[in-house]
Amino acid sequence: MAGVAPLFPLLDLAGTFAFAISGAVAARQRGLDGFGIVAIAFTVACGGGVVRDLCIGAVPPAGLADWRYLAVAVTAALLAMGAYRLVEKLAQPVLVFDAIGLGLFAVTGAQKSLAWGHNAEVALLLGMVTAVGGGVARDVLLNRVPVVLQREIYATAALLAAGIEVGGQLLGWADSWRSALAIALCVAWRLLSLRYQWHLPRFSRRRG
Amino acid sequence: MAGVAPLFPLLDLAGTFAFAISGAVAARQRGLDGFGIVAIAFTVACGGGVVRDLCIGAVPPAGLADWRYLAVAVTAALLAMGAYRLVEKLAQPVLVFDAIGLGLFAVTGAQKSLAWGHNAEVALLLGMVTAVGGGVARDVLLNRVPVVLQREIYATAALLAAGIEVGGQLLGWADSWRSALAIALCVAWRLLSLRYQWHLPRFSRRRG
Amino acid sequence: MAGVAPLFPLLDLAGTFAFAISGAVAARQRGLDGFGIVAIAFTVACGGGVVRDLCIGAVPPAGLADWRYLAVAVTAALLAMGAYRLVEKLAQPVLVFDAIGLGLFAVTGAQKSLAWGHNAEVALLLGMVTAVGGGVARDVLLNRVPVVLQREIYATAALLAAGIEVGGQLLGWADSWRSALAIALCVAWRLLSLRYQWHLPRFSRRRG
Repeated sequence: MAGVAPLFPLLDLAGTFAFAISGAVAARQRGLDGFGIVAIAFTVACGGGVVRDLCIGAVPPAGLADWRYLAVAVTAALLAMGAYRLVEKLAQPVLVFDAIGLGLFAVTGAQKSLAWGHNAEVALLLGMVTAVGGGVARDVLLNRVPVVLQREIYATAALLAAGIEVGGQLLGWADSWRSALAIALCVAWRLLSLRYQWHLPRFSRRRG
Repeated sequence: MAGVAPLFPLLDLAGTFAFAISGAVAARQRGLDGFGIVAIAFTVACGGGVVRDLCIGAVPPAGLADWRYLAVAVTAALLAMGAYRLVEKLAQPVLVFDAIGLGLFAVTGAQKSLAWGHNAEVALLLGMVTAVGGGVARDVLLNRVPVVLQREIYATAALLAAGIEVGGQLLGWADSWRSALAIALCVAWRLLSLRYQWHLPRFSRRRG
Repeated sequence: MAGVAPLFPLLDLAGTFAFAISGAVAARQRGLDGFGIVAIAFTVACGGGVVRDLCIGAVPPAGLADWRYLAVAVTAALLAMGAYRLVEKLAQPVLVFDAIGLGLFAVTGAQKSLAWGHNAEVALLLGMVTAVGGGVARDVLLNRVPVVLQREIYATAALLAAGIEVGGQLLGWADSWRSALAIALCVAWRLLSLRYQWHLPRFSRRRG
């Protein structure tokens, strides 16, 4: 999750914080204890990156070796435990930072995969996994079908960002513009889909 | 999942398709959206091989780097979305190809583990994981106890195929006959167990 | 899970056995078949170590390559299937060996991470994962929220043991005393918390 432009490290921590908050809140609502809340917050923040790093051969995974991610996750968990009302008030800005984190993680995940010498398909898939893997792990641990598989424009927004990043590198677009465009379109698509309740089609003949 | 005989690459794609269909149908029945259906189809098709490759040190996992697996999974998902009646009619042939895929993945998974220099136990376990790991991941993501742990002759058929492959290599049996025998016995055991509803014993005193 | 003192290999197998028994009993109670019981027993015994080995780059994972762990898991599963009354009578000693296994796995997991050249945070986190990862996988496969995230002093006892091991190495404490102290405190904290029903605080306003 190394930054690719001066702003990126800050956005990276802000996105990590938003991811961790979503985990901590979900864990608290599920009745987990203090350890469980920290564990789920950390899982959402770093789980996708850990899977990406295992798949590209980058051991140990960055999320386990960099104390800042752990510190951000613990902070988010403590806030969700001790200042739940504040966290509830932060719901709107957290959604925005969550969308930024989604795009940024997809872009940096794709970049890292390419930098380790893997092909475009690997970069595309692992960029998306970096962005949504932690949320999938959260839902599996909380014993429910992952939200990203069911509804909402979320994984496809990450796929869009990873696709622009990978495609732009193949086409030789300038680094910073390419990544900024990828993140901006991901954020726009995510927030517009929330605002207007866009969904992907479902095909079940049974009631979901 | 490299072929070991001229027929194997074709069987590999047919087995992958059968696995992906089973994932796509289960995801559709669970009410997932279009992205979720593709994701589950791809997970069933490639999940076991990804875990095997991580465990033997083959990064990036073949399932993420070879576009044909992704193409097969997307095709299966599109069929399950757009031609569900056709897919229902294909149920019987899909079961046969699923059984072939089970045996083939167990054999090629064990072969790859041995080829990377690991011992017979690793090859046996990872051959089985290659064959059933994707189905386990499907059930975990769909929030239910994995079917292979509960009933039906499925994982043990994969274990049989992996065992014949590993044992045959240790005993110096000829390559192509050994693998064909392993796959044929796995398919026979799987289809006979379906036909005559054989099960492994269960031991619970509670109602399952 | 290599031993660090003459007693450790024995304790390692005893702890593995206790872990496997807990998995086999839970799988039997859930109504799994014979294969499922063996699979869950093996998962609890070796799952945490497999994740640790993948994260530190030690392939193939020790749990898959050393036949003794498989033999212990199969033995525990057969006991849970064929001698359930005996296993019920063993409940108390199994709890003690489970606590010893918890501390020992946390210590040896942290040691192995440091021995492979990773930093203190990685060793702390992966020591804990070695100890509790198998139990988390058991609960995910049995389709329930992992017990270690919900209640009981369990993961925090493992974290304590890993922390003493890592901190002691940084401070240059003598090997055998450091590890013995870490395990003893983990066991004491775990057993006292069971005896007096200590829990970590929970924060939910909904009913858990």
